[in-house]
Amino acid sequence: MSAPLLLTNLTVATMAPDAVDYGLLGDASIVIEDGRIAWSGRAEERPSGFAGLPPQSLAGRLVTPALIDCHTHIVHGGNRAREFEMRLKGASYEEIARAGGGIVSTVTATREASEEELLKSALRLADSLIAEGATCIEVKSGYGLDQDTELKMLRTARRIADMRPLRVVTTFLGAHAVPPEYSGRDGAYIDEVCIPALRAAHAEGLVDAVDGFCEGIAFQPDQIARVFDVAKELGLPVKLHAEQLSNLGGAKLAASYGALSADHIEYLDEDGVAAMANAGTTAVILPGAYYTLRETQKPPLAALREMGVPMALATDANPGSSPLTSLLLTMNMGCTLFRMTPEEALAGVTRNAARALGLSDCGTIEVGKRADLAVWDVAHPSELAYRIGFNPLFKRFFGGHA
Amino acid sequence: MSAPLLLTNLTVATMAPDAVDYGLLGDASIVIEDGRIAWSGRAEERPSGFAGLPPQSLAGRLVTPALIDCHTHIVHGGNRAREFEMRLKGASYEEIARAGGGIVSTVTATREASEEELLKSALRLADSLIAEGATCIEVKSGYGLDQDTELKMLRTARRIADMRPLRVVTTFLGAHAVPPEYSGRDGAYIDEVCIPALRAAHAEGLVDAVDGFCEGIAFQPDQIARVFDVAKELGLPVKLHAEQLSNLGGAKLAASYGALSADHIEYLDEDGVAAMANAGTTAVILPGAYYTLRETQKPPLAALREMGVPMALATDANPGSSPLTSLLLTMNMGCTLFRMTPEEALAGVTRNAARALGLSDCGTIEVGKRADLAVWDVAHPSELAYRIGFNPLFKRFFGGHA
Ligand SMILES: [Zn+2]
Ligand SMILES: [Zn+2]
Repeated sequence: MSAPLLLTNLTVATMAPDAVDYGLLGDASIVIEDGRIAWSGRAEERPSGFAGLPPQSLAGRLVTPALIDCHTHIVHGGNRAREFEMRLKGASYEEIARAGGGIVSTVTATREASEEELLKSALRLADSLIAEGATCIEVKSGYGLDQDTELKMLRTARRIADMRPLRVVTTFLGAHAVPPEYSGRDGAYIDEVCIPALRAAHAEGLVDAVDGFCEGIAFQPDQIARVFDVAKELGLPVKLHAEQLSNLGGAKLAASYGALSADHIEYLDEDGVAAMANAGTTAVILPGAYYTLRETQKPPLAALREMGVPMALATDANPGSSPLTSLLLTMNMGCTLFRMTPEEALAGVTRNAARALGLSDCGTIEVGKRADLAVWDVAHPSELAYRIGFNPLFKRFFGGHA
Repeated sequence: MSAPLLLTNLTVATMAPDAVDYGLLGDASIVIEDGRIAWSGRAEERPSGFAGLPPQSLAGRLVTPALIDCHTHIVHGGNRAREFEMRLKGASYEEIARAGGGIVSTVTATREASEEELLKSALRLADSLIAEGATCIEVKSGYGLDQDTELKMLRTARRIADMRPLRVVTTFLGAHAVPPEYSGRDGAYIDEVCIPALRAAHAEGLVDAVDGFCEGIAFQPDQIARVFDVAKELGLPVKLHAEQLSNLGGAKLAASYGALSADHIEYLDEDGVAAMANAGTTAVILPGAYYTLRETQKPPLAALREMGVPMALATDANPGSSPLTSLLLTMNMGCTLFRMTPEEALAGVTRNAARALGLSDCGTIEVGKRADLAVWDVAHPSELAYRIGFNPLFKRFFGGHA
């Protein structure tokens, strides 16, 4: 238990669910006790019970909930910079595949890497997120595609939280791609590798949620359903990479399992939006992949807004389709590419990102929540999404610790 | 004069004009004397004259020329985050104009700001560039649009170089926009304000080059020509914001004055490319503005390559159409949005950026050049353009000083 803390002379953007205009409040104070927010509000209204605390002035800066990246693949071997270069030099997909490129190259590199190597490269990427005020990230498996490597990835993900002041939520993504040794036998891969690996990872306490990639180039809805049935049996929440490149009805399937989130969803139809709304499933918008793949189909924001589906925003940090490790830039992309408002973008990396991870103790500045806070050198929260490639973070609090 | 320095155990990407594949050389060393590169090459070939120096190992890291941002507007009052937000909330251009938005709001804020205030905000943006290995930036005036404020902006730009280990090249951009008080009288503005301000700024030693904005919403070619005639008389090089939103033949006009660069050039035609090639004018590609304005017309890269026009890349850092202060992200945008190769992107922020500024003493790692170097934690230079929102800079040398 750390000493109570009184932060004063600040503007707070609470991002509370019912708040309007970011929940902005000037001349505010925040009291932190036992790593939680004990009080927040206008300084002059602070209860006398908090009177004895030595104040720490934030000189008028803006305080928001700390950022949360609810969709990353930061544990992986190698990178795909050379493939990026080959493509820009005009190489065809076939030539790149022949040169060992594509997701298979990441699978090979991840299988070959030691846990120490995976940890070292993941920490570099995590540090990039932390530097912009992230205190919580999700990390997926899915580049092993065999039991040993999937578990190695998840163990690595857990270790990130031992090495950094950062909360890590793990996701089993065995149903990410069909490994070369199961080419043409994707159903067999699900039953013989993916599901046994999920059971083994769960038995080791490595799994907080279960994910899949429902797409023509990955797995069909009935295969995903087999994985989700096991998740249900194990009491694990599910989420899904759905409707990124086509509409297979993945989001609807996920919603039928009460999924935490459906992610990407560029090709989601009204029917899928309604299913998500009814199930309380969060939409995770991933503009980094859209940008990198130069897609043109945008997620159905108007329908999501209209039906009240909460929208999160995440980096999708991965070596192939989104080598992006900046949540601030993700916010800008959400606004610039998809016309989200800056307030929606900030909610997307705070309150709604927490929701997408099933976390109820963070993502807003409210009494009782974890004191995970970001302090910014900006006059107004709209600046966070407005600037491109600029980091105005002044300080980060993780469970009340600076 | 500082002590000589021997950097060893590094990979060098010289980016020399005749080099292939970045001028990459492993197991290399670099010798720095008097702030200049005295020698660079394979460690085993180092002349015995440099034998006595104490080596500083870079542990296998990559060394490139330091980065150069050859087109910025980082000196300005205020920011346009609230306008960005209004637009995303659905406000029309008219509503934004009524609320005092658009370039006029920046002009007003810049006129009202003290030199100290301008300097403070410019330094924040300069620091963002420095943090990614920039050692040289160009800074334009153009938000004053009256003599006093244009000179105040240029004085501020000069002061940046006193406050940071950074070289600043100033550009007079009086012909940036028509100020409200000259609305409908753009020709009179050129003759009564812009040209006298240019003469005054030059008399004070504040001008390294002269720029203009040739566009329907700004100035016509004949008005730009009047400014360029004065630049010529004063012995100042010229450059031009040209063909960004339409084709007025600005690049051709600029080339006819032997311009250093034509910038933006999305709408440049073959004729304009040929004129630039003949004049040795550099194309400055600005993907940040293209991205922010959601343009669809791309600069004619194939024609520029074919006719051998050197391509630079820059942030165009400005509060309206490109609030971008990351050259690494600019490189990624050049590749992702315009299909430049990673090598072209790196040349664009080193060798060709120097060329666009008329500087012959930096931008490559060659004997006799300034020891402006960037040391990166990457295995290959393609990683610099590949990652998005990630800064792998390990160290920066500015004139040989770390
Ligand atoms: Zn993903
Ligand atoms: Zn510009």
